[in-house]
Amino acid sequence: MSPPTQSPKIRLYVDADLASGAELAPRDDQAHYLRRVMRLGAGDAVAVFNGRDGEWRATLSPRGKRSAVLHVECCLRGQTAGPDIWLAFAPVKRPHIDFLVEKASELGVARLVPVMTRFTMVDRVNLDRLRANAIEAAEQSGRLAVPGIADPVSFDEFVAGLGPDRGLYWGDETGDGVPLTSAITGHKERPASVFVGPEGGFSDAERTPLHALEFARAVSLGPRILRADTAALVLLAQWQTLAGDL
Amino acid sequence: MSPPTQSPKIRLYVDADLASGAELAPRDDQAHYLRRVMRLGAGDAVAVFNGRDGEWRATLSPRGKRSAVLHVECCLRGQTAGPDIWLAFAPVKRPHIDFLVEKASELGVARLVPVMTRFTMVDRVNLDRLRANAIEAAEQSGRLAVPGIADPVSFDEFVAGLGPDRGLYWGDETGDGVPLTSAITGHKERPASVFVGPEGGFSDAERTPLHALEFARAVSLGPRILRADTAALVLLAQWQTLAGDL
Repeated sequence: MSPPTQSPKIRLYVDADLASGAELAPRDDQAHYLRRVMRLGAGDAVAVFNGRDGEWRATLSPRGKRSAVLHVECCLRGQTAGPDIWLAFAPVKRPHIDFLVEKASELGVARLVPVMTRFTMVDRVNLDRLRANAIEAAEQSGRLAVPGIADPVSFDEFVAGLGPDRGLYWGDETGDGVPLTSAITGHKERPASVFVGPEGGFSDAERTPLHALEFARAVSLGPRILRADTAALVLLAQWQTLAGDL
Repeated sequence: MSPPTQSPKIRLYVDADLASGAELAPRDDQAHYLRRVMRLGAGDAVAVFNGRDGEWRATLSPRGKRSAVLHVECCLRGQTAGPDIWLAFAPVKRPHIDFLVEKASELGVARLVPVMTRFTMVDRVNLDRLRANAIEAAEQSGRLAVPGIADPVSFDEFVAGLGPDRGLYWGDETGDGVPLTSAITGHKERPASVFVGPEGGFSDAERTPLHALEFARAVSLGPRILRADTAALVLLAQWQTLAGDL
């Protein structure tokens, strides 16, 4: 083991396994970022993480004009599990969906689930872009894992996949719900999903099965009408404050 | 009084006093929005508010090709005071400052105060654009008032203007603070400001006077590094959840 070192400010998410002595070949865009954007040279240190093996210090060896090798040296932090909170959301248009993924990742969400509801105005989700946004936010926020991004599902598929081992708090814009501070009482230890509909809200045909779920609670978000992305972030921030690590 | 009517979905913030029988001349951009974008015609209803007189129903009379008159009919909601929470923030670059103003307005902030701190990377704030964003968010979120936007002040001016009648919760990225859930105990009834520094955080020379203020508390925001705009929104959402109307 090397002596304790300060964690490098530049963090990279990588796929490869991490262990002392490993050599990594960063992707072309990562090598470009390290060498051309951040102007790192031979021996400069970065932090790398893969969501499994914790965070490691690695040093750079430039190769040719465009590529590089990272030499993994020592473990900076062991892997730890974050709060078990998922965000299910009706996809919204850019730039709001990008903002949503960035902020949700910063807020420590474990998994993002796009749900195509009745009034969802977006018919295609660019999962590659969502994933790139989530990785960038994880790198910058110091997370040890990148939020998983599920394939989009229909509302019916989403509800069919729910179960009592994970509580569901869904934003009810009709005002029938209760604040999360009340809804969560007695359930703070349970993994949870928060679920937010599109700008047009949930349809009556969607609200009925949600109300029928024993492990789901309709939550209200105060007297103002929130945009869908704002509602998602408020619910995540509230859950992390009341039951998570904020 | 007309019989009770459903509140029109289109809301306009206006400067003029509102009373039954008043006639308003919307600005050119508002008339364009009503006639060309929303395609309203003679007799169609909108809601108007000015931050003082509550929300009123008004009907449209087109005038010529481009302008219009609004006839104020009946009061839909009386004016009420919202939670007394201010956001002081180090300005950040677009698009993050636009998101910040939009979301803070949706979250019910009463006043926005740009503070030029030591590590603030923006040297000019477009107050007209911030105000336009705040108005649009107030219109869409159903608020009865538009957040005030203060002229930018230096850090020293900001601190000199603070007093014990308004609590201050400032985001301390060093990890020395306590969660707002603890910091606010015993002070939920007091008006408050939340204060968030720039990406580079507060300088040591800034942290010292903040720590010395009897009515200020350093607050932590969990184990992840949050962007400045995320930190502001989280603190606002937390305060509104714990002491406000969320």
